[in-house]
Amino acid sequence: MADAPAGRRDFAGLPSGPAIVLVAPQMPENIGSAARAMLNFGLTDLRLVRPEKRFPHPRAEALASGASFVLERARVFDSTEAAVGDLHRLYAATAREREMLKPVQGPRQAVAEIGAALRTGERCGILFGSERVGLLNEDVVLAEKIVTIPVNPGFSSLNLAQAVAVLAYEWWCFLAGPPAERFSFGRTRPATREEVFGLFEHLERELDEAGYFAKVPDKREAMLTNIRNSLQRGPLLDQDVRTLRGIVKQLAGKRIPGSKRRRQDG
Amino acid sequence: MADAPAGRRDFAGLPSGPAIVLVAPQMPENIGSAARAMLNFGLTDLRLVRPEKRFPHPRAEALASGASFVLERARVFDSTEAAVGDLHRLYAATAREREMLKPVQGPRQAVAEIGAALRTGERCGILFGSERVGLLNEDVVLAEKIVTIPVNPGFSSLNLAQAVAVLAYEWWCFLAGPPAERFSFGRTRPATREEVFGLFEHLERELDEAGYFAKVPDKREAMLTNIRNSLQRGPLLDQDVRTLRGIVKQLAGKRIPGSKRRRQDG
Repeated sequence: MADAPAGRRDFAGLPSGPAIVLVAPQMPENIGSAARAMLNFGLTDLRLVRPEKRFPHPRAEALASGASFVLERARVFDSTEAAVGDLHRLYAATAREREMLKPVQGPRQAVAEIGAALRTGERCGILFGSERVGLLNEDVVLAEKIVTIPVNPGFSSLNLAQAVAVLAYEWWCFLAGPPAERFSFGRTRPATREEVFGLFEHLERELDEAGYFAKVPDKREAMLTNIRNSLQRGPLLDQDVRTLRGIVKQLAGKRIPGSKRRRQDG
Repeated sequence: MADAPAGRRDFAGLPSGPAIVLVAPQMPENIGSAARAMLNFGLTDLRLVRPEKRFPHPRAEALASGASFVLERARVFDSTEAAVGDLHRLYAATAREREMLKPVQGPRQAVAEIGAALRTGERCGILFGSERVGLLNEDVVLAEKIVTIPVNPGFSSLNLAQAVAVLAYEWWCFLAGPPAERFSFGRTRPATREEVFGLFEHLERELDEAGYFAKVPDKREAMLTNIRNSLQRGPLLDQDVRTLRGIVKQLAGKRIPGSKRRRQDG
């Protein structure tokens, strides 16, 4: 997390991220799922404006799956204005076209702007509307910008918690920086060319011994080229070379010593 | 969607994307939520390996919220091998470290590779494990690569449908290309400098008329500089200029004609 914003950290020791403000959420399940996704992706400041069911709620707790941490600290407000009053920057998450002149960004751009603002000590938030109607214009107008998650226009209605998850995921990607490809298990490294050539020579010697090319000696070079290319389709690790040499040794050892007959005649 | 892969399209007319393969999913709700997220982000090929509850299931249907489309075409298999047999490339979605040498990619990189492979006519898929235990090693080893969604290490257990949603979101971002900032409402354009200068001159003329600078004539230039900068914090649109000129006109019109007293004395 080399690029994490300097400065404020939240109660969980995470770099302070944007507040997630759910306006008039209907289903406690979605509040719980949103809390879980938030904590998965390093967000902890959950604010609820007039939730339809009472809050706290056992169904929110159940869906949070251990992110009760976030639910316990969630604050409930009577109005969107009150919920966002302390914030310096506010985005409205909505996909609907509004008869409103307001800049619209994708999640990645919005999160990058939010991250930059947080670094300077500003507080930021993202508004999400209710499951049934989304954000009302009277809420959207409170925000400076709109953030729109790009979706299939043929089926564009995102679940509320999924929408929170996508923004939160982008937040964590921003914090963590783009992950580089790596190997899942650390005790290896790419094989050197010398190790790879050693494997080829070992294999080719044993194939010669076994009479692999005996019937088609003029094709030997072409076949060796194919074999070498086959074995190099992916990056060979030092462990791959050891594994493959072990296989060659074991298979070669099974032939009757001094005899080439098994392969030739089989 | 200028960058959409050429070639195959799925039954919904969308560019063919990776198959989503859920291995031993426990909760029909998660199957439904995954189907909804898939269709939101343009994926339609859902495959289930030994779902714990019967399938189809009414709770899956309920959570799919209209993506029954995807559920109806979902296929159920007895083994992961059977479910992925026709695919050319397979990724295993898992965050757990495995005692296994396998390349690990983030969602964005994996989806870009999948998109490139799909363009050449290959079929691709992503494996997801069950809610309780995730993917078993015997499933992970079927895949060429691992895709890991970056998460908060302090709370890393993602909901199954959320994990599908994140990969599917990256897929749609890949298809659609990075969204540029735009305005939510098309009938406008950035104001020209001439229009902006016209606003400034109009406002300054009215302020002079109203005696705004009368008590501090030596500060007039500095105040004008501040006003001009304040009005240019964000990009001014042609409609902004019209709106602001309307405000100036109306406010100026409310003064008693010929009198500067109201502002000066108030």
